[in-house]
Amino acid sequence: MCLQLGVESCEFRLKMGKLITFEGIEGCGKTTQIKLLGDYLRKKGYTIYETREPGGTLIGDQIRMVLLNPDNKGMSEITELFLYEACRAQLIKELREKSSDKDIILCDRFTDSTIAYQRYGRGIDKGIIKELNRIASNGIKPALTILLDLDVKTGLGRAKERNIKGRRKKAAEGRFEEEALEFHQKVREGFLKIASEESERVKLTDANRGIEEVHKEIVKLVEGHLLKADS
Amino acid sequence: MCLQLGVESCEFRLKMGKLITFEGIEGCGKTTQIKLLGDYLRKKGYTIYETREPGGTLIGDQIRMVLLNPDNKGMSEITELFLYEACRAQLIKELREKSSDKDIILCDRFTDSTIAYQRYGRGIDKGIIKELNRIASNGIKPALTILLDLDVKTGLGRAKERNIKGRRKKAAEGRFEEEALEFHQKVREGFLKIASEESERVKLTDANRGIEEVHKEIVKLVEGHLLKADS
Repeated sequence: MCLQLGVESCEFRLKMGKLITFEGIEGCGKTTQIKLLGDYLRKKGYTIYETREPGGTLIGDQIRMVLLNPDNKGMSEITELFLYEACRAQLIKELREKSSDKDIILCDRFTDSTIAYQRYGRGIDKGIIKELNRIASNGIKPALTILLDLDVKTGLGRAKERNIKGRRKKAAEGRFEEEALEFHQKVREGFLKIASEESERVKLTDANRGIEEVHKEIVKLVEGHLLKADS
Repeated sequence: MCLQLGVESCEFRLKMGKLITFEGIEGCGKTTQIKLLGDYLRKKGYTIYETREPGGTLIGDQIRMVLLNPDNKGMSEITELFLYEACRAQLIKELREKSSDKDIILCDRFTDSTIAYQRYGRGIDKGIIKELNRIASNGIKPALTILLDLDVKTGLGRAKERNIKGRRKKAAEGRFEEEALEFHQKVREGFLKIASEESERVKLTDANRGIEEVHKEIVKLVEGHLLKADS
């Protein structure tokens, strides 16, 4: 029993791969950059897991459908928060079961998104969110976080274009993109606040630039981190 | 803003009807007894809401399907806990929106089930469960709880019979009934412990007796409570 949480074995936790998370507002390019970085690191010989929140597991994907369903507009903010944490707990459980400490996990959104969206966007008490994040992740923190920063109008424009092109199922992905511009603005500011408070872990990247340019900077940041961690 | 939780208005919370919860192991007769009591109280002129956990709302029913799906056997215990709390937060939000303080809400399972199943059954830390229960229910506690106590073998036998008769969809209701006898035994003992610790609120009823006999005792307990509350 892990004394801190009273839930699962701490020993088990040590087995999990290195967690690198990607954060940012809608349309900031996380998915594209994770794919590029994953391919790059695989060529270097690493075993890579690419995953996302909410979702990333069969159970998490079922919860994701509830979360992002545009029909569920009357969802309580606390229900929403619990559903994100439910996905996270499942993802962590399964990553710990299948990854080893030599592997690298690239995760599209993690606990910082909960702080940015639920705390800064929705206004839920920070203490509650931190406590639930801790319980859901079993205290696991990202080794490195890439924050793709972008102005909100550009981001939402990109997200809309993506939906029109049909690369994502519109019905199941829409609830957050339909929020007011002001909400996304608060979320962006939330992310920037996290980056300024935790500058050692969270690396800010200007996502207004071209895909290749952003990719090169991310590679530099990640390789720098891996070198440092190995030394 | 409610200072205690930092989430929603405390004033709003006062509007909710009186909450009477029904607890007990699978097959103890909660659903039947709630129906009988609801009919009885309606005839007496009360406005009654009959609801249940997990579920009771459109969003909660979607979460219920994830929770009870027998295919989701690999669900993390913490994920399960978060999903129950997500349902609860939604139920409380909607009850507060539609019920007035003159109404009576009869709820099939509530926070005591989370303590009995997740604490005593699964072994999750009590402090975590109490904190999540408090956040999800916005601090609302049942005014009265009827615990239908029954030996586990009889209860599970009844639940199995119910499924065979097809009164419930087997696929979506099975995950808990498939747990080992020992698990349900722990849950029953958990309920009895709660009843002994909170004897003022939780009224123990012997559910081994016939439906009518149990109903009569419940009517007595509830009317006694309502008289006391009115005086």
